[in-house]
Amino acid sequence: MSSTPSLTLYTVGTPNGQKASIALEELGLPYKTHKIEFSKNEQKEEWFLRINPNGRIPALVDNGRGDFPVMESGAILLYLAEHYDPNHLLLAKDANKRSEAIQWLMWQMGGLGPMQGQANHFFRYAPEKIPYGIKRYQDETKRLYSVMERALSDDRDYLVGDYSLADIACFGWVAAHNWAGVGLEEFPKVDAWLHRVAQRPAVRKGMDVPDKNDLIDRDFAVDKDADKKAAEASKWIMDSLKK
Amino acid sequence: MSSTPSLTLYTVGTPNGQKASIALEELGLPYKTHKIEFSKNEQKEEWFLRINPNGRIPALVDNGRGDFPVMESGAILLYLAEHYDPNHLLLAKDANKRSEAIQWLMWQMGGLGPMQGQANHFFRYAPEKIPYGIKRYQDETKRLYSVMERALSDDRDYLVGDYSLADIACFGWVAAHNWAGVGLEEFPKVDAWLHRVAQRPAVRKGMDVPDKNDLIDRDFAVDKDADKKAAEASKWIMDSLKK
Repeated sequence: MSSTPSLTLYTVGTPNGQKASIALEELGLPYKTHKIEFSKNEQKEEWFLRINPNGRIPALVDNGRGDFPVMESGAILLYLAEHYDPNHLLLAKDANKRSEAIQWLMWQMGGLGPMQGQANHFFRYAPEKIPYGIKRYQDETKRLYSVMERALSDDRDYLVGDYSLADIACFGWVAAHNWAGVGLEEFPKVDAWLHRVAQRPAVRKGMDVPDKNDLIDRDFAVDKDADKKAAEASKWIMDSLKK
Repeated sequence: MSSTPSLTLYTVGTPNGQKASIALEELGLPYKTHKIEFSKNEQKEEWFLRINPNGRIPALVDNGRGDFPVMESGAILLYLAEHYDPNHLLLAKDANKRSEAIQWLMWQMGGLGPMQGQANHFFRYAPEKIPYGIKRYQDETKRLYSVMERALSDDRDYLVGDYSLADIACFGWVAAHNWAGVGLEEFPKVDAWLHRVAQRPAVRKGMDVPDKNDLIDRDFAVDKDADKKAAEASKWIMDSLKK
């Protein structure tokens, strides 16, 4: 790093947004936060599409490197590892350990995130209650947790042994298991891992971006206003899908 | 590379499997192919779970590097780029260009793949016809194609300018658009990109792994036995979900 990093994170307090803010906090990087207003469909505005043509959060702009834009939470983690992780906290120096972390990052990006996200949709947001959809995605979320359980059964504290971006990628999703209507009773090692990761100061700080978040203090229980919040979110989620 | 590479690809002729075989062909690497028999649930057998605890294809084992296993198609692409791509065909040397390709890889892993995969499920495989599910995922697939259309509108032949692993990641999915019941009429630049990528000899060779595949020769039309094939696949897909 030739000069002080200057970064802007465009985000919302969702599991994907939290990946980026937790990683930034872990690396001790200074950054500005811009909260994207989903309820105003700000993520579809032209200025934001020039940063992220996919119109989703999070997006990172590296103001210290020519305003270089990075879309996709997984790509943000790898970008931060490449440019701002001299101590190899996010990603090991050893090629095999690095690949293992990337494998679990990809597993989260292609499996845990999208599938638990669909469980959220059918369980919380869809205007029709469709049992097939709820069951399909809750079952797949449980299957994915069972894969984590197996990985953690090898006397590992973290997914690839040492803490890495793989844990950061999965944390926010597993932390929100109750929102998807899935419990961790069958997955004691995942549950222990969740509480272990939650103790990290950078994780607590990153969870509070862009807004204060008390999920860890609630021990991952659903908010008592969950139904009301889901109904409000459902309105703009369904509206935004029309456009 | 200190010695001749020795690789084994565990795969099936799906868009995710094709990513790995196309990349191996592009790099001119020798590799053995092991076809996984989904109809026998081979992907859930203990020997395979030791290679890929997620029980999915593709998986790569690097026999020349201590039988190191790599799960997740996106991680396989990055692994091949790191170890076997001295000419930077998959991933540019320039850090920003490399990040751009990784961003689109993540976009495919987290968006195009899982969402078009759900369109396939509701449109072709689900035992009940659920209009909400079909529409939700076909609409999202179209939205994702519109994002590609925008990216390719900047006088680009490929997603990040030069051909990269981003194109390899997306190709098999876009090639299978008709299987998901989605057309490319609204996306002329995506259609032109698809035909451009399809002309690459390594892409044609990679599409024929593990079995001969005539999708390119059919100009991406659905197989005339599509309904019969979908019904057969539906049977073991639904069976495998029970386990």
